[in-house]
Amino acid sequence: MATKTRTASPDPATAAAVTLRSLTQIPLRPADAWQPDADTRTGRIPLALPRPIAPDARFRPSAFSGEALPFQVTAFREGHDLIGVHVRLFSPSGVESLHRLEPLRDGFDRWRTLIAPGEQGVWRFRFEGFADDFATWEHAADLKIAAGVDAPLMREMGALLLDRARKQKDRDAAQRRTLTAASAALRDPQTSDDDALLIVRDETIATYFRDRPLQSLLTIGDEHELLVERERAGVGAWYEFFPRSEGAKRLKDGTIKSGTFRTATKRLPAVAAMGFDVLYLPPIHPIGEVNRKGPNNTLTTGPGDPGSPWAIGSAAGGHDTVHPDLGSLADFRAFVRAARSEGLEVALDLALQAAPDHPWVAAHPEWFTTLPDGSIAYAENPPKKYQDIYPINFDNDPEGIRAEVLRVVRHWIAQGVKIFRVDNPHTKPLQFWEWLIATVTGEHPDVVFLAEAFTRPAPLLGLAQVGFQQSYSYFTWRNTKAELEEFLTWISDETADIMRPNLFVNTPDILTEYLQYGGRPAYKIRAALAATAGASYGVYAGYELIENVARPGSEENIDNEKYEYKLRDWAAADAAGTTLAPYLTRLNEIRRAHPALRQLRGLTLHWSDDDAILVFSKHIPGALTASGEPDTILVVANVDPHSTRQTTVHLDSTVWGVPRGDDYEVEDLITGATWTWNQDAFVRLDAFYEPVHILHVKESR
Amino acid sequence: MATKTRTASPDPATAAAVTLRSLTQIPLRPADAWQPDADTRTGRIPLALPRPIAPDARFRPSAFSGEALPFQVTAFREGHDLIGVHVRLFSPSGVESLHRLEPLRDGFDRWRTLIAPGEQGVWRFRFEGFADDFATWEHAADLKIAAGVDAPLMREMGALLLDRARKQKDRDAAQRRTLTAASAALRDPQTSDDDALLIVRDETIATYFRDRPLQSLLTIGDEHELLVERERAGVGAWYEFFPRSEGAKRLKDGTIKSGTFRTATKRLPAVAAMGFDVLYLPPIHPIGEVNRKGPNNTLTTGPGDPGSPWAIGSAAGGHDTVHPDLGSLADFRAFVRAARSEGLEVALDLALQAAPDHPWVAAHPEWFTTLPDGSIAYAENPPKKYQDIYPINFDNDPEGIRAEVLRVVRHWIAQGVKIFRVDNPHTKPLQFWEWLIATVTGEHPDVVFLAEAFTRPAPLLGLAQVGFQQSYSYFTWRNTKAELEEFLTWISDETADIMRPNLFVNTPDILTEYLQYGGRPAYKIRAALAATAGASYGVYAGYELIENVARPGSEENIDNEKYEYKLRDWAAADAAGTTLAPYLTRLNEIRRAHPALRQLRGLTLHWSDDDAILVFSKHIPGALTASGEPDTILVVANVDPHSTRQTTVHLDSTVWGVPRGDDYEVEDLITGATWTWNQDAFVRLDAFYEPVHILHVKESR
Repeated sequence: MATKTRTASPDPATAAAVTLRSLTQIPLRPADAWQPDADTRTGRIPLALPRPIAPDARFRPSAFSGEALPFQVTAFREGHDLIGVHVRLFSPSGVESLHRLEPLRDGFDRWRTLIAPGEQGVWRFRFEGFADDFATWEHAADLKIAAGVDAPLMREMGALLLDRARKQKDRDAAQRRTLTAASAALRDPQTSDDDALLIVRDETIATYFRDRPLQSLLTIGDEHELLVERERAGVGAWYEFFPRSEGAKRLKDGTIKSGTFRTATKRLPAVAAMGFDVLYLPPIHPIGEVNRKGPNNTLTTGPGDPGSPWAIGSAAGGHDTVHPDLGSLADFRAFVRAARSEGLEVALDLALQAAPDHPWVAAHPEWFTTLPDGSIAYAENPPKKYQDIYPINFDNDPEGIRAEVLRVVRHWIAQGVKIFRVDNPHTKPLQFWEWLIATVTGEHPDVVFLAEAFTRPAPLLGLAQVGFQQSYSYFTWRNTKAELEEFLTWISDETADIMRPNLFVNTPDILTEYLQYGGRPAYKIRAALAATAGASYGVYAGYELIENVARPGSEENIDNEKYEYKLRDWAAADAAGTTLAPYLTRLNEIRRAHPALRQLRGLTLHWSDDDAILVFSKHIPGALTASGEPDTILVVANVDPHSTRQTTVHLDSTVWGVPRGDDYEVEDLITGATWTWNQDAFVRLDAFYEPVHILHVKESR
Repeated sequence: MATKTRTASPDPATAAAVTLRSLTQIPLRPADAWQPDADTRTGRIPLALPRPIAPDARFRPSAFSGEALPFQVTAFREGHDLIGVHVRLFSPSGVESLHRLEPLRDGFDRWRTLIAPGEQGVWRFRFEGFADDFATWEHAADLKIAAGVDAPLMREMGALLLDRARKQKDRDAAQRRTLTAASAALRDPQTSDDDALLIVRDETIATYFRDRPLQSLLTIGDEHELLVERERAGVGAWYEFFPRSEGAKRLKDGTIKSGTFRTATKRLPAVAAMGFDVLYLPPIHPIGEVNRKGPNNTLTTGPGDPGSPWAIGSAAGGHDTVHPDLGSLADFRAFVRAARSEGLEVALDLALQAAPDHPWVAAHPEWFTTLPDGSIAYAENPPKKYQDIYPINFDNDPEGIRAEVLRVVRHWIAQGVKIFRVDNPHTKPLQFWEWLIATVTGEHPDVVFLAEAFTRPAPLLGLAQVGFQQSYSYFTWRNTKAELEEFLTWISDETADIMRPNLFVNTPDILTEYLQYGGRPAYKIRAALAATAGASYGVYAGYELIENVARPGSEENIDNEKYEYKLRDWAAADAAGTTLAPYLTRLNEIRRAHPALRQLRGLTLHWSDDDAILVFSKHIPGALTASGEPDTILVVANVDPHSTRQTTVHLDSTVWGVPRGDDYEVEDLITGATWTWNQDAFVRLDAFYEPVHILHVKESR
């Protein structure tokens, strides 16, 4: 908790501007007056409940580069005197900056400011509370001089404070002249009390003291850490396809010839043209032959059945090998390069399990569970068995497994992969992931792990806390307005200090009833919500084609691509105009044009009178955007895919700086329509036309 | 975090029984298998969000001796295998005990048990998570043998576990025989699978493994501390009177002769007869003569006006002195002794402020704020001034002020006082209280401080966290059913790890509109709620007499006792039958007879169909009471003092161990009526007859 000195830097002010953007950055001043109180844990100005923070204080909160983070703390003092609160940040490279917090006046003594750290790495920050002597005087003088109480005394007290301010080092000559003149005027009997009041209320003086408060009782809070990772750790539009399907062909004998990395490369321009940032591939490794699953998860396979990519490993190799049907390792590298040239980053699946014929099984039976009868345990959920998969037992030879997984991950990093989508991480020890992610990001800070953590909140948040940069979320099962309102609050505020959700709209494992029965409107609604509410979102191939038929009794697509090749006629769908590709393209264009949508936070729910009309805004102040312009997007969605709804929505325009009651212009970024809105607006949303308004608010601050 | 060894004790089992009561204490076993994992913060079985805990981890949570505390933690592991959770406690004298937690099955992986620590002092505790190998097998074997899947394998796995259990040291010969027989039977081909299932489901074996689980992957959480203070820190019925009023007499010239400690002593039997535990006296020190306040807070005083006891200090002395009108220090000591012999403990006011003629002002002007004009600052809330009070400036000479306050507190402790009611602690530095309470309780662990913290939640909870054993609360302003439901959840669960509220129904400063306009029913309702919902509650004298006339425009009694003597004719009120004393007496009798009511926690809200009928139960299991009997009180209150309400209430009887749908007998402890109730019950509550049912549930577990 010792006071740190600023690291030498040729031009700290410039460096700080590059390092972060801030709503309330003020001139740097040392906090050197403070001495810790040896016999209490409470500081002179109590500081409590800092944010950002991880639920378990042994872990760091995290953010992505450019994320607009609220820095918040509870601060108060005894009695009526006013206080101020600063947060002091130290960037990973040692640049120090100081920021003023604003009181939220919420009755809970919370203080807050917004800061967007840029530089990747571990930041340090601490809150500083202080008695704000000028503000206390200003408040009392304003009331008392106006009431004719103690006016001479208040004027002399003000003059003394101005004299004290003159001795501060970091003011320029003009400011010194202003302070000197004000001090003299307050003391001058020729100055009337009314004129003295003008000094009390003077804007220039108030601004001066806001940036350079007269502090006493300075209290410095504990130092905290914040991990800032690259932007893609938190922001991106993902697309998932099976490379074996892209370019697969039905042969004359009725069997299907697998697509390869070379044929799949031809699909990359179309994915890039839709505006996606990340292309995620299910496992690309050899697939087990033993107990291979057939079409629709059956236990029998025909000769042409390719099996599930998640049943990894065969005589052809394991997790470090490319499936021979897809091509060579060189083909994979070429695919990654081709994707990169289209602006797409390739994400690979990391599924730590083995088919019975995976090379690990013979070489390392101790990595699995051997039963009393000598057999190796299949995956099971008693009494069900999954005989194509052996789960890893992480406890027999933890060091050996760690070394092997690290070798595999390093291998793929060496091929150009920087993003891993981790299959079912909640079925492996949390401890293992903490170790793996810390080790890998220690070597390669740019590597991102996405947790496929479809599990209960405790393990889901545990995985986020120990290092997963992103997580699948409950989004797919949050479809009603009430469910979505709770979910959006949860992801954009309650869990945002540790978890960055990726709002996939569908996956090969998840075709929700909402999508099965909601038709084309449902597909538009879910894509629009995911793309605007989520800083990261994702689409699994076939979503564009409204593939909404489930295997009876399941929540998955029928004829699931997990077990067979999928031949899709993209060109025919384009020609027929039945594809949602243009809609997805427009959503991604909007995301790229609007920085508010590339934020996890800054989301506010607004009221509507209809229980299916969801309204939320996303806002980022100009001080935190690259352009310096504020950005506000207002989403009004009819989440009932079967109806037309009309209702009144009630908007708190103060969120984007428009006083309540003032008009503002909005433009629908889907249809191009423009309207003048106010605090109440009538909307009519036809699910079969455009179920979602994505409105750009033209006036915002 | 090292494993501690149990301190030698002649008979640990007996010592543990005296030290605590527990719902799930099990035989002590060492947790010696564990080795910390050096390279992760996550343990093999993740353990998170422990309770009890203080919001700021630098502080200890606290409890009172005998408080039934939920020990809770989030624990889970990967996959489907089952886990168990223990909490290991170390009493201040070193007695170690082990307790099994139950899964709440709430979807959030919370585990919980109830423990009532007895011994005062600092306890240490830590949670231990482990893979429960027998439970995992039992669950799988039950399903798989019944389904005819892998029966021989499951039987052999069970036999191996039973063999492993036989090697545990802490089982007796009978248990060994049971385990041996079960193991043999599972392996015996003559045993049918149906009979094998009976072993899987055997109660004796299940109980054995519940108490002595077969652990693997044992993970030991961080060690935490819990401060346990004496019962009166959290439990008690308080009564406040002004000693100067008790025995005061109007003289022939119309002036009033002050009551004294001697005359006030005569009132003690009546207070004790009502069943109160603590008698709180407003300041008993000399009252300032300078700027003394007159009746009804006026600025002018007549010769006989006694002034406010909170304007402390005059030529006659300061905080260490007894007001000459009340008698001598010896008289005070005699009063304290007389109270004690009636079963009443005296609580003294600690109001750290001074009248202008307090001896401190001349001797230590540096303890106050001197203005630029040389005057000392009055208390003020600009532009209002309180000219009879000088607030202390704690920053000019903190060491001097600390020493003086400590001297004053020690002085009153030496006179027999062990409870201090602290006036407006939120107008003094929080840091000061942390130091004072730690210092005083370090010398005298039995001393209790009650915070008169009528302030915002942050400072209110801050005061509780730094050491105040009790706090006034928002109870007086929580009058509707909705307000009370939120408040009761807040005090009995959300804040209960640090704050113990004292539910005063009125004070000399607070006469709420509810009491002003609610008549006698309002007074009964508020007393009944305070006495049953609060482990501590309090009444200020005159409440019995329904003194409900406010000074116009204020929330205080007219002709307020703060500024004048109050002559009350207790005998006449008794004779007329208009006093609420018998009702208060009955409430305190019920509190003494029912341990559930002497708990802050264990409160459950139940549903009613009427928005003015509040329903809550308080329950304590028999394992945690001195008698060994469980206790359940069900309160059904009409909180509308103006009406008769009839409605249906819906009760979750599983809270007290009665299966949903079963009948149970209840007895109204106010009227003596008895009824047979079930999950739904019809109630009719006439505010003008008995507005509150206080029901003893005869069947509870």
